[in-house]
Amino acid sequence: MATFQSNKKALILIDPFNDFLSEGGKLWDTVKETVIGNNMISNLKKIISECRKKQIQIIYAPHRKTQKGDYLNWNFLSPSHLGSYNLNLFEINSWGGEFHPELQPQEGDLIAQNHWTASGFANTDLDFLLKQHGINQIVLAGMRANTCIDSTARYGVELGYHVTLIKDGIGAFNWEEIKATVETNFPNYGHSLLTTEEFIASL
Amino acid sequence: MATFQSNKKALILIDPFNDFLSEGGKLWDTVKETVIGNNMISNLKKIISECRKKQIQIIYAPHRKTQKGDYLNWNFLSPSHLGSYNLNLFEINSWGGEFHPELQPQEGDLIAQNHWTASGFANTDLDFLLKQHGINQIVLAGMRANTCIDSTARYGVELGYHVTLIKDGIGAFNWEEIKATVETNFPNYGHSLLTTEEFIASL
Amino acid sequence: MATFQSNKKALILIDPFNDFLSEGGKLWDTVKETVIGNNMISNLKKIISECRKKQIQIIYAPHRKTQKGDYLNWNFLSPSHLGSYNLNLFEINSWGGEFHPELQPQEGDLIAQNHWTASGFANTDLDFLLKQHGINQIVLAGMRANTCIDSTARYGVELGYHVTLIKDGIGAFNWEEIKATVETNFPNYGHSLLTTEEFIASL
Amino acid sequence: MATFQSNKKALILIDPFNDFLSEGGKLWDTVKETVIGNNMISNLKKIISECRKKQIQIIYAPHRKTQKGDYLNWNFLSPSHLGSYNLNLFEINSWGGEFHPELQPQEGDLIAQNHWTASGFANTDLDFLLKQHGINQIVLAGMRANTCIDSTARYGVELGYHVTLIKDGIGAFNWEEIKATVETNFPNYGHSLLTTEEFIASL
Repeated sequence: MATFQSNKKALILIDPFNDFLSEGGKLWDTVKETVIGNNMISNLKKIISECRKKQIQIIYAPHRKTQKGDYLNWNFLSPSHLGSYNLNLFEINSWGGEFHPELQPQEGDLIAQNHWTASGFANTDLDFLLKQHGINQIVLAGMRANTCIDSTARYGVELGYHVTLIKDGIGAFNWEEIKATVETNFPNYGHSLLTTEEFIASL
Repeated sequence: MATFQSNKKALILIDPFNDFLSEGGKLWDTVKETVIGNNMISNLKKIISECRKKQIQIIYAPHRKTQKGDYLNWNFLSPSHLGSYNLNLFEINSWGGEFHPELQPQEGDLIAQNHWTASGFANTDLDFLLKQHGINQIVLAGMRANTCIDSTARYGVELGYHVTLIKDGIGAFNWEEIKATVETNFPNYGHSLLTTEEFIASL
Repeated sequence: MATFQSNKKALILIDPFNDFLSEGGKLWDTVKETVIGNNMISNLKKIISECRKKQIQIIYAPHRKTQKGDYLNWNFLSPSHLGSYNLNLFEINSWGGEFHPELQPQEGDLIAQNHWTASGFANTDLDFLLKQHGINQIVLAGMRANTCIDSTARYGVELGYHVTLIKDGIGAFNWEEIKATVETNFPNYGHSLLTTEEFIASL
Repeated sequence: MATFQSNKKALILIDPFNDFLSEGGKLWDTVKETVIGNNMISNLKKIISECRKKQIQIIYAPHRKTQKGDYLNWNFLSPSHLGSYNLNLFEINSWGGEFHPELQPQEGDLIAQNHWTASGFANTDLDFLLKQHGINQIVLAGMRANTCIDSTARYGVELGYHVTLIKDGIGAFNWEEIKATVETNFPNYGHSLLTTEEFIASL
């Protein structure tokens, strides 16, 4: 029997869609202040590139791509469900529902089932894929700080993972949301809060 | 406050793929004895038709459609994972991975996320969809009796649902498997075990 | 078949322990500013009393009571796990691990399994108990705003529940934490944000 | 980064209560044919002893100990819930709800939250405890073959674990149930089916 714990990391990219991250995307104007302010796209590109070099598994955790019939007759639409419905956000077979051109998956990356709400784990196979790949540490980046990122981080801890958040690899609707996640909430429950530079140096 | 429980049913159709249920499907020769013996296709058609008339929600719970990269580098392939991999079962974009022509979804039906293993609930959004539609009773039919059907039924009970099994709406590799589910296991944990005729009469 | 959705509420009381809410509790000095500022104990008493009158189910969702062996040899202690371990928080068989004397359960209330981290749903039977009691709407109050309350609310939405937060029925380590939950985060994903008075008026 | 998967096992003991395994227990007369026939108690003692020597983590996965109020006002009692209720099975603070005297936990063993139905994983912290201890392989023994054992095994596979079943470390109401699990079902989804002797030789 092995008597030690081998640690194995994965980078989880949450919702790097054109609707969020590209000029012309449905939410670009809403998020661009923090995305540009954090230098987020450039940071994600560096992180992805380093992870590929170091053979760290990359997993995309994408939001549901809105399609005909979605959200109809639901009992309890939350504000975020309603927003997705009204905007037809990440519409299936549309440019807005594609990943940002510079953040595309490559062969060997994994793509988890779509999430309907915020956590990349809830109602998806993300935990299962991590287990089948022997991964016990997750590194989170993407959109949106206080919704999908915060929820995925919280679920990660509840599921027994070591959770790292890249604090300049995320964006939001405003700096208040970033602050709530990075300063007020994550330090209470997360394991490691790093800049892109610190994360890359740690590999 | 409402002081009573309103009950609302859904029919859950598990894996009604050509690879199982149509001549020429990859597992047709393996399952045809029980599928034909139970008159399963004809029974499913009757059930689906009655459910549509009575506006009972129909939800498809489909298995993962095998695609490039699936199962690679997994730690622990189970015999059923290995079987799916070796057969390229329910191959994506293939006829075998389509639903049987007489058991096709219609507008208003729901299709849950794909399951990797056996339970239609595990690592999918099936529980979430049922909750959003106010459904607390599930009726199970499809393939395969002692794997996907039995596992989905067990999960259903653990998740708090009332679970009905249509005993002549299922098939398997042999009658021993049907017997294990219908006679030995389900009566210990399931709520209602009905023939197609009994189920339709109960609506 | 019923053609409408009957709604049924439960009040979920999270961690109303002496260690949080009573003078002399291990975290009383840390939380008293917000607990007193929100008039939280008095508000919870009113809410509990009204729920009993209206026969709304009350469910306690308590944190793990620290005992010998807990957290030993864990791979990834989060800051909150470490805090619980270091303080011997909610110690089993101690006064600090009892519920506040004015917020005691009565016959007919339910007590969910203990949670190890923050969400009252994670690794517990809370979802199962709610389903078995036909409840699809939850109302949250207790401690601590940006950890257990926020996480339980997020899980509630992911699990398909309608989620109400009593904004003056919660406390935290400081007002910044309250603000992050009540102003910045919950309005994005929660269904209803009410004062004690508004909640009681709504019953 | 570690580039290999270290495997770490745990022995999961399911429901080794006096009510099942001791003369005078409420279900002893019902299960004694298979428990004695499999030489189950003696086998479990050997397995536990070997696991302790090899420092393999032992985890108890116990059923809910029936107490006042349990199962009252539930929507959907399954036959097994009803049986537990009617027999007052594993009654809290009773001898029947204690573990068999020769299968007692020792310091360093873990005890998961109680399960209400059959799977040791459902609505409990078993998955979380396994993750926090870096365990990715589980070995199952205990009671009852086609309910708790089969359900826990199925959940284990869905959760990404390697699952071993000790085929003479289990009991049931009759040999038909044992056969359904050991011959008909487990070989389709489980990873390893061993006798006590084979398991010990493999350590």
